[in-house]
Amino acid sequence: MPARPDTAVAQIQFADLQALLQRVFVRHGTSEAVARALAFNCASAQRDGAHSHGVFRIPGYVSTLASGWVDGQAVPEVTDVASAFVRVDAKGGFAQPALAAARELLLEKARSAGIAVLAIHNSHHFAALWPDVEPFADEGLVALSVVNSMTCVVPHGARRPLFGTNPIAFAAPCAGSDPIVFDMATSAMAHGDVQIAARKGEQLPYGIGVDSEGQPTRDPQKILEGGALLPFGEHKGSALSMMVELLAAALTGGNFSWEFDWSQHPGAKTPWTGQLIIVIDPSKAEGNQFAVRSRQLVDQMQAVGVSRMPGERRFREREASAREGVSLTAQELEQLQALAQG
Amino acid sequence: MPARPDTAVAQIQFADLQALLQRVFVRHGTSEAVARALAFNCASAQRDGAHSHGVFRIPGYVSTLASGWVDGQAVPEVTDVASAFVRVDAKGGFAQPALAAARELLLEKARSAGIAVLAIHNSHHFAALWPDVEPFADEGLVALSVVNSMTCVVPHGARRPLFGTNPIAFAAPCAGSDPIVFDMATSAMAHGDVQIAARKGEQLPYGIGVDSEGQPTRDPQKILEGGALLPFGEHKGSALSMMVELLAAALTGGNFSWEFDWSQHPGAKTPWTGQLIIVIDPSKAEGNQFAVRSRQLVDQMQAVGVSRMPGERRFREREASAREGVSLTAQELEQLQALAQG
Repeated sequence: MPARPDTAVAQIQFADLQALLQRVFVRHGTSEAVARALAFNCASAQRDGAHSHGVFRIPGYVSTLASGWVDGQAVPEVTDVASAFVRVDAKGGFAQPALAAARELLLEKARSAGIAVLAIHNSHHFAALWPDVEPFADEGLVALSVVNSMTCVVPHGARRPLFGTNPIAFAAPCAGSDPIVFDMATSAMAHGDVQIAARKGEQLPYGIGVDSEGQPTRDPQKILEGGALLPFGEHKGSALSMMVELLAAALTGGNFSWEFDWSQHPGAKTPWTGQLIIVIDPSKAEGNQFAVRSRQLVDQMQAVGVSRMPGERRFREREASAREGVSLTAQELEQLQALAQG
Repeated sequence: MPARPDTAVAQIQFADLQALLQRVFVRHGTSEAVARALAFNCASAQRDGAHSHGVFRIPGYVSTLASGWVDGQAVPEVTDVASAFVRVDAKGGFAQPALAAARELLLEKARSAGIAVLAIHNSHHFAALWPDVEPFADEGLVALSVVNSMTCVVPHGARRPLFGTNPIAFAAPCAGSDPIVFDMATSAMAHGDVQIAARKGEQLPYGIGVDSEGQPTRDPQKILEGGALLPFGEHKGSALSMMVELLAAALTGGNFSWEFDWSQHPGAKTPWTGQLIIVIDPSKAEGNQFAVRSRQLVDQMQAVGVSRMPGERRFREREASAREGVSLTAQELEQLQALAQG
């Protein structure tokens, strides 16, 4: 059989992709519960065209699990700390099952107290962040989340990298349409997008990163191999990245992005840090018409010429995937099928 | 008497400046309580070298009060909504007295629930935002605040302005030193700094704003007169500015930055919007050593070459002001004394 080109596209139903990924995770050492959370997350990213966090991530998950760096069987321990504060010890496992374990308690507290916070530590987050916040908006709540990652970003004015890509994600309901959702690395580019550019042999704009000598470079390979990323928006993005370290690590009991040592675990790819999620119940707000007001904001943004709302592309891709199936390359599908077997 | 040049410097004790400003506010129509809150805020900004929000703002306060746009006598109405949610109707007055009125309740809730939110609406915010969050860090708490303002920022990808400069401020305690505090406009430059550049006749870098035709300009006057600012960090800063509109207006019951009409109040300068403050008690966090961890972050940032922490310049200026008095120009001092009389 001739090798199919990398670009040939296979379409697969979302449920089938999810089931396939779930088999991959279980086959490589996770519990069924962990596999369920990760497969849903990863299949959702692929479905929504967020390819840097879709099936592209699977080899990284597999090598990390094989390295013994992460505990794929970990059972998160949830602590009810106060009327609006929940802690989870992810026990060295992934962050998504930790969120899943605490989710109901967090929702209950947010609805009762008006706002609540979930602090996850001892966790590995290797995925997009919007899947963690979007479901709260689907329930009529406003959610904000931050997660720190691994040293690869040079703070503004510094000589060497320290921060992670440290994304901030936000979701809010909007009357009559999909929620408003964004998920932004506080680095000038997400790490996964640099990897994709490197794989494609593409050059990046200046201002994204530096090489191992600290010199500006357009070569994604040089950024990945001994180089580093820059924060977005100079000192402002850098201050936000610092805030993410404080909220996601200092406030959760997790590691800062530079604190973990995975050198004894070749193949390890997942940052072992922390995550914070704040959920607000807008029904407590004056007037109780948040989603209607949110709609007015979107209408005004469109009236002044904004042609694409944050997150909108993902919702369009999601619709297309519902009609036509989720796209991945034939090679990726083959690889997943092989990983599910052995 | 020959006119003294604009640059001659007068030194004044902080308490004297505060008392002088308090007389100015009362003389121009505020209650004693409102004058106290605004004078402390404005004197603090001047003391800390934050000149765009120091006495530079007084003529704007005075003309706004004279225009009848803001109620300087307003008595804020605090509502205890839920175990972690406080609302304040500022009754068309300033935001600072509204925060002052709700502060004790907010602190109590944050300490009891682990996190609490204060939603202020029907309020005018014309000041720096860091004075609203820094005092929480002094009490060992972490605080985040956002306030929307008035249409002067073009959303990324749009043709016309819509958002305000919409700052985000954050404060966190740090063991053995001043707290970590930042206050950043989500616009490429704060409005007050553009005004100062215009007054000085300075050119700005490209990327800060556009003229009335939507064309890039370096002239601050053209930005102020029919032009507009751009968000910092392109689509990312723009998404954060949008988030500020949602949190500070939609979630509080306040006006969006484009919703108020002050055309019947010549001289009005203060945006009539809303403000959100989230306060978290880090003693609820795993390990309960937030301030120590915060210190470790600062140490690491310095180790990689960060020479100035966010907010550090303000603390240095504060020390200098404590030693030598608060600096303002002789002309500014004269103007304040005149305003305090008539």
